[in-house]
Amino acid sequence: MRCDVLAVGTELLLGQIVDGNSAWIGEQLAAHGIDSLLQVKVGDNVGRITATLRRMLEEADAVIVTGGLGPTHDDVTRDALAAVLGVELHPDEAVAETIRSLFASRGRVMPENNLRQALVPDGATVIAQTRGTAPGLIGEVDGRVVYAVPGVPHEMRDMLERSVLPDLGRRLGPTSVIASRTVRTWGDSESGMNARLDELIARLDAVGDPTLAFLARGWEGLEIRLTTRQPDRATADAVLDGVVAEVRTVLGPLVVSADGRSMEAVVLDQLRDAGLTIGLAESVTGGLVAGRLTAVPGASDVLRGSIVSYASGVKFDLLEVTPGPVVNEPVAVEMAEGARRVLGADVGLGLTGVAGPAEQDGVAVGTVCIAVALPTGTHATTLRLGTGREQVRQFAVINALDLLRRRLHLLTGG
Amino acid sequence: MRCDVLAVGTELLLGQIVDGNSAWIGEQLAAHGIDSLLQVKVGDNVGRITATLRRMLEEADAVIVTGGLGPTHDDVTRDALAAVLGVELHPDEAVAETIRSLFASRGRVMPENNLRQALVPDGATVIAQTRGTAPGLIGEVDGRVVYAVPGVPHEMRDMLERSVLPDLGRRLGPTSVIASRTVRTWGDSESGMNARLDELIARLDAVGDPTLAFLARGWEGLEIRLTTRQPDRATADAVLDGVVAEVRTVLGPLVVSADGRSMEAVVLDQLRDAGLTIGLAESVTGGLVAGRLTAVPGASDVLRGSIVSYASGVKFDLLEVTPGPVVNEPVAVEMAEGARRVLGADVGLGLTGVAGPAEQDGVAVGTVCIAVALPTGTHATTLRLGTGREQVRQFAVINALDLLRRRLHLLTGG
Repeated sequence: MRCDVLAVGTELLLGQIVDGNSAWIGEQLAAHGIDSLLQVKVGDNVGRITATLRRMLEEADAVIVTGGLGPTHDDVTRDALAAVLGVELHPDEAVAETIRSLFASRGRVMPENNLRQALVPDGATVIAQTRGTAPGLIGEVDGRVVYAVPGVPHEMRDMLERSVLPDLGRRLGPTSVIASRTVRTWGDSESGMNARLDELIARLDAVGDPTLAFLARGWEGLEIRLTTRQPDRATADAVLDGVVAEVRTVLGPLVVSADGRSMEAVVLDQLRDAGLTIGLAESVTGGLVAGRLTAVPGASDVLRGSIVSYASGVKFDLLEVTPGPVVNEPVAVEMAEGARRVLGADVGLGLTGVAGPAEQDGVAVGTVCIAVALPTGTHATTLRLGTGREQVRQFAVINALDLLRRRLHLLTGG
Repeated sequence: MRCDVLAVGTELLLGQIVDGNSAWIGEQLAAHGIDSLLQVKVGDNVGRITATLRRMLEEADAVIVTGGLGPTHDDVTRDALAAVLGVELHPDEAVAETIRSLFASRGRVMPENNLRQALVPDGATVIAQTRGTAPGLIGEVDGRVVYAVPGVPHEMRDMLERSVLPDLGRRLGPTSVIASRTVRTWGDSESGMNARLDELIARLDAVGDPTLAFLARGWEGLEIRLTTRQPDRATADAVLDGVVAEVRTVLGPLVVSADGRSMEAVVLDQLRDAGLTIGLAESVTGGLVAGRLTAVPGASDVLRGSIVSYASGVKFDLLEVTPGPVVNEPVAVEMAEGARRVLGADVGLGLTGVAGPAEQDGVAVGTVCIAVALPTGTHATTLRLGTGREQVRQFAVINALDLLRRRLHLLTGG
């Protein structure tokens, strides 16, 4: 099956926004065993969208259109879709009601032009909107299928995962099931992982299934995506379980999870399972570690809080750090232990460092000290994490969570 | 003149690399007054590159092809270009010599397959390679022109600036300048902004220049992009200054900035200009407000820190919040004032709310209370921000920053 991608938006052609959507969609399609051979960007012009979509449907079995579903005069994907399907647009009362109630739930009055988003091409299927006001649309023409989804990335991703990819899966046919498993890893490069998994990769390549692919996630590490095509779900699961177990054996503690959990979710689960609470003291990361942990529902079971001690005076007064230079391991240790004490937690995490742009107290940009205070003792480490401010901060966050994960693993054995 | 863009590379379709090249090229073309109406990604397949390029040349005056000029067997842009031009490829001795001397200058022996890069379609013009081993190529067919440049971004940019854009400029004739301005706004929907700017949009539409476009940035609000084409830079700037002033008059405090600054940068500048420091007390946002403020270099001038009081006990003990239910305006006020006191700051910001998935103390998911404690008094508000955990948290962050921005504006008059 071939599914091409059409990204709509004049801002994409002008380079005001880089089209990351079609890259993300391409990655998802590949993971589901679907070819994507042409990906096109076109502006907010109904004639050009219509003509481009028609031409793409001459070659592809399906086209995903992203963008142009907003409420304003230059959002014309709905009109182009109706033209390609050869039908009229009519208001859908259920969709209109959802939009009205979305506005009401935010205490806002809905401007009348938002009802443009309730227009649905006759015969098309609506993908319910759960994050924004624009619904998605599914239309069929001459045995080909067009999916229209919003251009706002989190809305687009939600609809892809919830509706478009499952629908494509059904169209792939009942004779085979495509299933994937993602192993999240942290702590080695792509080439390093490749070398470690050399023997397994060669063996899988020889058979052709499951496929193993590396997906680089920047500071989030590397994902290993295993995909198999099998006659039924049970066989697919059994095959994937076997390969995941092999990957775990080879990579050991480099594996963060094989069930989709993020690094922070794993750490919270470790703490919860051990009956431990945690408190943080952050300087260089400015609250980002707490921000990530609290993104996980149920974090309040174990997270007491965080002291973001950005000014040195806050470190000295509130965390009782010994006055003096503030970027070194002893300060990280005092911060971790101060966080335990001030926040009344079993475990403390302390981070101090220099994110830049300028050095601090003679300490170079990129230097980050992390300490983990456990009931059994405190462990500290110093890292050099590059030079860009954002990079230093994000690497500091993930390194701190990984240090915590490994220390908790040693502490609890699980 | 219309110049479209074709990005070549299977890794682009698979989402292993996001195609930033065509966005950058689109921006350059726009700045040179050249339309780019279609931008396509295609894999390393000579048949598909050839067919796509032929089709693109039916509509465009010029096509820039980026990628597929490397030395390996899957670098086939040269072959596709020769096919489209209807000519043969022959080795160019001058190009070959340059490649050999590049290798020699790095003390390396040239692998034989690198001579593939010296193959030039008969009649094509070579763009000399100054950064990598691949030369660029310019070919003409039926009065249309094709530019082939490498996919490595810095090599591509070098050839665009040094050769392709000047060549397009010569073909364009008398020059014109395209300039843009972005106005960041927060506090109304796209349709609401559209309604407010109705009269201005109609007036601009009637003239056709400048153009006004909305770019939705999700919870970050809405950008208004103004673009004009004028004979010279000074005229363009004067035209844009005038329209930006009109937009500011209509939208008033909905305008965050017209100079590219983010919401958090604006807030930090307001505080710095007023000589005020700030301290935060975050619960529902779990450190995200501090995380955003500290993303801006120089935040340490004004930000003392943040108390992430996730557990209720931390609110009571550290911030001296009155024990009881913790999601209501009086608690937000006590948090804001506690943050001022505990962190030794002039201004305090307090946030408490329910991010979900479950309600808390009978308070519904999405309820967020925000308080700003200023030297002149404390202001609090309660918002309902939807139901998704991530959405509630991110909207809480941006709403809090916006409340701070508006209150500081009233306080300082600037």
